[in-house]
Amino acid sequence: MGSDNHPGPDVAGAVLAAREFGDEIILVGDEAAVRQELDKQNPAGLPIHIIHASQVISMTDKPSEASRSKPDSSMHVGLNLVKDGQADAFVSAGNTGGILAVAMLHTLRRIRGIKRPALGVIFPLGNHPMLTDNGANADCKPEYLLQFAMMGSIYVERVRGVDRPRVALISNGEEEGKGNLLIKETIPLLLESGLNYVGNIEPKEFVQGKADVGVTDGFTGNVMLKTAEAVASYMSGLIRQEIKASPVTAVGGLLARPAFDRVRRQLDPDEVGGAPLLGVNGVVIIGHGRSNAYAIKQAVGQARKAVERDIVNAIRAGVAG
Amino acid sequence: MGSDNHPGPDVAGAVLAAREFGDEIILVGDEAAVRQELDKQNPAGLPIHIIHASQVISMTDKPSEASRSKPDSSMHVGLNLVKDGQADAFVSAGNTGGILAVAMLHTLRRIRGIKRPALGVIFPLGNHPMLTDNGANADCKPEYLLQFAMMGSIYVERVRGVDRPRVALISNGEEEGKGNLLIKETIPLLLESGLNYVGNIEPKEFVQGKADVGVTDGFTGNVMLKTAEAVASYMSGLIRQEIKASPVTAVGGLLARPAFDRVRRQLDPDEVGGAPLLGVNGVVIIGHGRSNAYAIKQAVGQARKAVERDIVNAIRAGVAG
Repeated sequence: MGSDNHPGPDVAGAVLAAREFGDEIILVGDEAAVRQELDKQNPAGLPIHIIHASQVISMTDKPSEASRSKPDSSMHVGLNLVKDGQADAFVSAGNTGGILAVAMLHTLRRIRGIKRPALGVIFPLGNHPMLTDNGANADCKPEYLLQFAMMGSIYVERVRGVDRPRVALISNGEEEGKGNLLIKETIPLLLESGLNYVGNIEPKEFVQGKADVGVTDGFTGNVMLKTAEAVASYMSGLIRQEIKASPVTAVGGLLARPAFDRVRRQLDPDEVGGAPLLGVNGVVIIGHGRSNAYAIKQAVGQARKAVERDIVNAIRAGVAG
Repeated sequence: MGSDNHPGPDVAGAVLAAREFGDEIILVGDEAAVRQELDKQNPAGLPIHIIHASQVISMTDKPSEASRSKPDSSMHVGLNLVKDGQADAFVSAGNTGGILAVAMLHTLRRIRGIKRPALGVIFPLGNHPMLTDNGANADCKPEYLLQFAMMGSIYVERVRGVDRPRVALISNGEEEGKGNLLIKETIPLLLESGLNYVGNIEPKEFVQGKADVGVTDGFTGNVMLKTAEAVASYMSGLIRQEIKASPVTAVGGLLARPAFDRVRRQLDPDEVGGAPLLGVNGVVIIGHGRSNAYAIKQAVGQARKAVERDIVNAIRAGVAG
């Protein structure tokens, strides 16, 4: 109920997922609105149910306030289904801050020993590296970053099938002495962690695939993700504008269109799925607010893998030992 | 003497600058090597001199160490010329950390009242916004950011001719309550500063030109700049690869080449010049290590403007209140 164009793409994506994976899907939200969308999708025979929720946390709601004042939001109802074992995972394209607040403070809560849950985002680049934290924690301590590294490594190893993922700290330089205080104090913790820590890398090396998990505080991580998205979008616009600027280049652009389409598909965040919330007692995958049906289906597929590969218990074991 | 391909592009750029601006240029470095390059450029009649420096701080030198152990480096000699009033500005494409250390600790030193000098980088995007700090200070306090904002605003107003530059804090969200502690504590200082503070913006808004000066700690700023460069470079490579992947798209790419060339020129950091070091007692402009002659000439032109518009005294006045 909280995505930009809800509940159309969300319901359509759930139907795609039920068809492709055969999974049972519970749609949580305003029953009439969801039913109306579902009926458009020819859902007969698919294992899809609706559970009503009377409230909605919207994109403009303040997360902590709304998470308290709307206890029957679709986020509360959905996350409580996971908490109570009636669902295996929660997928949403709603207000990220809202999901974090409802999951961490009111429903699933933190895994015992996890100091701060973190958002992991898969970058749609070469080797699909994960960057974590991506905005759940603006201010971090070295112990948090150590746990982000551990959780990211477990996720990438189990869900993406990467053996001994290479973990790196994102820094402003690779040389000794570079980095801010947080980075410098995190280095010894990673060296002793048993993780496959490969050192500090700059954004360039991250983009080039020199690590499978990039670790950062949530402020820097979020600025980095948003800078990457902004520059990619700016460049696309500039190229489009300059190609249209003369008839010859416009013809060139037309002929080259299949190449541009391939580039667009490769850089499409929907292809790599949503962002897992790592460190809570359940599988939570958060999609872009503008997710289309395909993106929702991909996010369900990702949630499915995280459940199959038992991510939550792996993180519990990781933090215990 | 410290650029990637020194001293060829540096000398050639100086000659271009002397021709275009008529300025007197002092080349500082190994006299024989510099003389040899200069003689290739047909410099007769140009107001260009050489001053010998026996040492070089290279790209791989550790800044603080080298700034102590090489007191006759070309950086020391050149920056001392500015300190002693024999030169109006210092331009270099050498080791940024080395220049910072030599300028701040051994030669020009901080302007009285400036807590931390900062690097300002002009982004080659739409309205050419400045981001500061860009790597001089990995760990910052709110008072530093306030001064970065003041210095960036003065620079953009005087050198780029923007009236009452819009100053924004770079954050992970525009809404109240977003940002890390540093951002939250800096907001009241900016609100009371008399600067044209327009609020907090995300990287997307910065890229779209919603501010003339983006203010950030040096760690985040440097990660942001490097992410932007890395994504632009990655996208260019991907487009090139996909265009080459089939004969039809390759022909399209050929026809569209003038458009790509225009895009490349627009995104070329050399066009907007080097990074000013703000807050020391002299004009210092730092270019990319890979600067070609044209980029060096542009950096000299930028230094020239900063001198003409009396940036150093304007910052002195700004900090005095």
